[in-house]
Parts: sequence; structure tokens; C-alpha cells
Amino acid sequence: MQNRPPLTGAEQALWRPLTRIITVLPRTLEDQFVQDHGISMTDYTVLVSLSESPEWRLRLTDLASATALSLSRISRVVESLERRGLVRKVKCPQDRRAAHATLTDEGCATLRAAYPGHLERVRTHLFDHLSPEEVRAAGPILERLAAALEPPSRKPET
Amino acid sequence: MQNRPPLTGAEQALWRPLTRIITVLPRTLEDQFVQDHGISMTDYTVLVSLSESPEWRLRLTDLASATALSLSRISRVVESLERRGLVRKVKCPQDRRAAHATLTDEGCATLRAAYPGHLERVRTHLFDHLSPEEVRAAGPILERLAAALEPPSRKPET
Repeated sequence: MQNRPPLTGAEQALWRPLTRIITVLPRTLEDQFVQDHGISMTDYTVLVSLSESPEWRLRLTDLASATALSLSRISRVVESLERRGLVRKVKCPQDRRAAHATLTDEGCATLRAAYPGHLERVRTHLFDHLSPEEVRAAGPILERLAAALEPPSRKPET
Repeated sequence: MQNRPPLTGAEQALWRPLTRIITVLPRTLEDQFVQDHGISMTDYTVLVSLSESPEWRLRLTDLASATALSLSRISRVVESLERRGLVRKVKCPQDRRAAHATLTDEGCATLRAAYPGHLERVRTHLFDHLSPEEVRAAGPILERLAAALEPPSRKPET
């Protein structure tokens, strides 16, 4: 491992608030979901991913990519959601070996119930504090950071 | 609760990568710490906070603020670090009721050993992908986001 130069002042001015955000923001969102709807932030992310997919259905491997979770973790999350009636595991006619998950009507209802409160929190904690110019400036930078964090196998071919 | 407008395209372009970052980045950092040094990211953050304090010492309440953890959570983290000899709980002569934590020499050695690998990851996953202009632009925006996420009691008086 090569020795890297320590962070500059400008880099620290980005890194310190970012570490604060990755500590505090998940907890802020998590608390709201559990308190208001008895679902975790991860549950919510799974339900959103399914709701945005054709026929409300995704292979577990694609659901793992979409939610940035490991396959074993997503399997446990889906099983837990299935026990609560919010998703259902199904076989795909085209690919019977692959496990798929689909959103149930109850899962959709839970998502709809959780959405306004989630939106309220996201606006209150984030967007109410940023100008439209800041939002436009930050988006592409965060997009590049997020892309850089993907494991190589998930990155688009170059 | 008022009904808020859904996120605009520009807001989604910020929010989606941000949710990805808060999911993936903690895991990326955590994996490295546990694998290389047997400490968690939270452990590391505590050790850094102590190392940056006068006499390597902080009240547990201040350590909770510095690391964005609850007092009960920070107490458990400090106890675990104490069992491993990395920090020590001490009484403060000026305030005998308040619990303080101090970094041990072994804690300092662990921090020094973990730092180069941490720096390497932070550069590889973040700063290698950003121009100096992007770093300077993102810093103040993330700073405002981080400040917005603080609970009201921790915000500086206005």
C-alpha cells in the first residue's frame, strides 16, 4: 500500500460533514419509519424498488443490487416482509430457478401510507436547507461519489 | 402534517445517490476496519475524537455529541473499548460526577495503525474521483446538510 498524503483542509471540509451525514441521516429516517409504520428504512427501500419495477416484481439478485444489499441480507429482508404480508416470493415462468419477489396490495398500501411522512422528513431535513442552485450543484457530485462506491461488478461496462 | 410536493427531478438526482452513499459508504469503511484492525467504524470515530481532544480526554456526553451517538450507545462503545484496553474511564478532578474517557497508549497505537489504510480507502473511494473544484463546491453544501440534521439541542445558539 502506497502512503497517501493526508486530507487537505478542503477535503476535510467535505469528509467531516459526510461522515456526520452517513451516521445521522440513516438513524433519522429509520426512527421515523419504525415509529410511524413498523417498517425499517431497508424495508421501505425494498418496497420502493419493487413498486418501481414492471409488474411490481424483481429477481432477488436485482433487488440486492437496487438496494445495495448482499444477496443473503436481501433474502432475510424479503422473508421478513413476506411474513408480514408485504411482499410475496414467486417463481418466474421464464426462469424457474431464480427467486423473485413481488409487492402485495398490502405492501403497496404500506408504501403509500409511509410516503407522505418520508417526504416530509426528507424536505425538512434536507431540501428546506438548500437553494435550487445548491441542489443542482450537489446532485452530479453525489452521483459520482455513489458510482465510485459501487463494487466493480456493478459498474456499467466502459 | 402538511402535504409536501414530491421531489423534483433535480432533488431526486441528489436524493438517490445520497441514499446510496449512506447505505454503501458505512459498510465499505466498516469492512476495512474490522478486517484490518478488529475495530468498528464507531470505535475508530471514538478513538479519533479522543485523540483530537486536550489530554486525549472527553466527557462521555461530549463524546456522544462528537460521534453523533446516544449517551447509552456511547457508554456501551466505551465499555467495549475499555475491555480491549484502548480507552480508560476516568474521573475528572473538576467534576467528579461526570464520566470521562481517555485514550490509552494502546488505543493511540491502534489509531496510528488504522489511519493509513483508512486514508487509502477514503482517497480511493472518494477523493480520487473528484476534482479540487468539486471538493470545494461540495464541502459547504454537505456542511449545511450535516448542520440541518443535528437535533435542535446540539445546534449552536442563534
